[in-house]
Amino acid sequence: MPSSNITERAPFAVSLGDPAGIGPEIVAKSWVMRDARGLPPFFAVGDIASLRAVWLGPIAPIGAPEEAAKIFDTALPCLQVAQAGEIVPGTPDIDGARTAFQALEVAVGLARSGSAAGVVTAPVGKEQLYGVGFTHPGQTEFIAERCGVAPHNAVMMLAGPSLKVVPITIHIPLAQVPAALTIDLIRARAITTAKGLQRNFGIARPRLAVAGLNPHAGENGALGREEIDVIRPAIDLLRQDGLDIVGPLAADGMFHARARETYDAALCMYHDQALIPIKTLNFDEGVNITLGLPIVRTSPDHGTAFGIAGKDSANPGAMMAALRMAAEAARARIAHG
Amino acid sequence: MPSSNITERAPFAVSLGDPAGIGPEIVAKSWVMRDARGLPPFFAVGDIASLRAVWLGPIAPIGAPEEAAKIFDTALPCLQVAQAGEIVPGTPDIDGARTAFQALEVAVGLARSGSAAGVVTAPVGKEQLYGVGFTHPGQTEFIAERCGVAPHNAVMMLAGPSLKVVPITIHIPLAQVPAALTIDLIRARAITTAKGLQRNFGIARPRLAVAGLNPHAGENGALGREEIDVIRPAIDLLRQDGLDIVGPLAADGMFHARARETYDAALCMYHDQALIPIKTLNFDEGVNITLGLPIVRTSPDHGTAFGIAGKDSANPGAMMAALRMAAEAARARIAHG
Repeated sequence: MPSSNITERAPFAVSLGDPAGIGPEIVAKSWVMRDARGLPPFFAVGDIASLRAVWLGPIAPIGAPEEAAKIFDTALPCLQVAQAGEIVPGTPDIDGARTAFQALEVAVGLARSGSAAGVVTAPVGKEQLYGVGFTHPGQTEFIAERCGVAPHNAVMMLAGPSLKVVPITIHIPLAQVPAALTIDLIRARAITTAKGLQRNFGIARPRLAVAGLNPHAGENGALGREEIDVIRPAIDLLRQDGLDIVGPLAADGMFHARARETYDAALCMYHDQALIPIKTLNFDEGVNITLGLPIVRTSPDHGTAFGIAGKDSANPGAMMAALRMAAEAARARIAHG
Repeated sequence: MPSSNITERAPFAVSLGDPAGIGPEIVAKSWVMRDARGLPPFFAVGDIASLRAVWLGPIAPIGAPEEAAKIFDTALPCLQVAQAGEIVPGTPDIDGARTAFQALEVAVGLARSGSAAGVVTAPVGKEQLYGVGFTHPGQTEFIAERCGVAPHNAVMMLAGPSLKVVPITIHIPLAQVPAALTIDLIRARAITTAKGLQRNFGIARPRLAVAGLNPHAGENGALGREEIDVIRPAIDLLRQDGLDIVGPLAADGMFHARARETYDAALCMYHDQALIPIKTLNFDEGVNITLGLPIVRTSPDHGTAFGIAGKDSANPGAMMAALRMAAEAARARIAHG
């Protein structure tokens, strides 16, 4: 584990994502707000031209992460990784995808080596990446592989000021969700979530709440049996494992303010069950944090937004939240040892 | 249609629901707050003893709805319908179920005849009701039948200050949802919703937003085909019908504050997709309003809560919201003609 050489003073590596997306703009805007929002020192990884295409502020090319800290106060440090060619915000191309891929690779490598305190990834265009030989479903799986972690052990948590959620199944059709839920899968996700809350958020004894799959959590089998056959047995085993865990709860009753006070993270059975409540509550500040990795990795919970790229209208809120959460996670890891 | 003889001055009939549940308590607490919260005149329908069991305030037995208005300022009017026997809050029994059933029947009859401006129903215990010959899935279906409306044409809308949602499918296992969605069903629910928004909320040209079923609304078929095969064709037909309707939208992106400004009601594919956002946002003030009926009918969006009955801790917020919404709906119907 390389976490021993992460120090609070090392800067964070921020991959700029697709140069034609809103990544460069929200990274630049975050740098502008660095003091007001208490952001940790960071440096961009990507093509400087993608920053210049959308921003007139000061940029400092750097050759190594160590140079970032001393110039961070006066300019946005940027580690050049490739030339993306001509950049047209809103119009992704193959050169841009190659640059995004390389930026991700470099940023993760620097975090792995301890030169960066962690990695924050701006959004990539998946279709574009698939065109340049990227074979992973998303950035998370790629990062897991580079960290030597099996993809199913890297767990996506969406975290905002009001709520933390982990979807047990993610990008599959809703019709496939019931069959995809197994006792083993729920158990693995729950254990990684509990450890991730300790390690990244400094919560000594995390309290987990598990949603049911069916309306009213199945009403004792009247509205579906997955709670009885799969979810409850998984929870019973997890309790034997020593976890502080409750459920299956009726999903519609577990996300209002009073209910949220009773747990640290909610485990949800499918994508929208997790994403609806967090995006309803924290749309502009949702952070995707990957649990189960040896490095800190966060990301704003939104896409490339090619449609608004280059118009100076992108909201940097989620990117700033991702930077702050990365800093908190790095501090918690140092404290946790 | 008997709506012509609904007047703004007629009081609302409030069925007390299960006498051992929180119904009597929240109705009494609502009467106490009648002026502060601008509630319309109403009278309770049920067993006076169930009110006395939990409340020491003034109660005025009445023999007919017409007597309610003049005493509403000084006492809670109550139309006695049955003797529930000994009432132990938190402990439902067969006599109580019979009383709840009868109260519902009487309240609906009074609304049908125009003696009441509408009906507001406190929660019943379904298991208990099934024991006394109640054969409908819930109060809504019973009311629909008494109004001569086919159950599938009575549409449940959950409405709060921040959001209105209609679930297309409701109390079925999640695994059965994909097969239950048909073009005809979506179309029928959307049309009833649009008419209901005109009639009960006075919205001349309602804007509807339709959720997808799958993550990211299926991503053009990559994550499920229901959007392509069922939901989009239904929306296309509805647009031809003249409705202002958009979708299918990614469900996780349609419930934050800015998104909610773009529509008057969201049509959701299943129970939790509709109930999670509204209960997350408006947990204590969610109202169930039935669209497609000749009468006004609302209900607080919570259950009997037997566990806290008789402890003076029940929150009357949703009951008061249901009363206010009933009054608004009655006014809108008069204006709508």
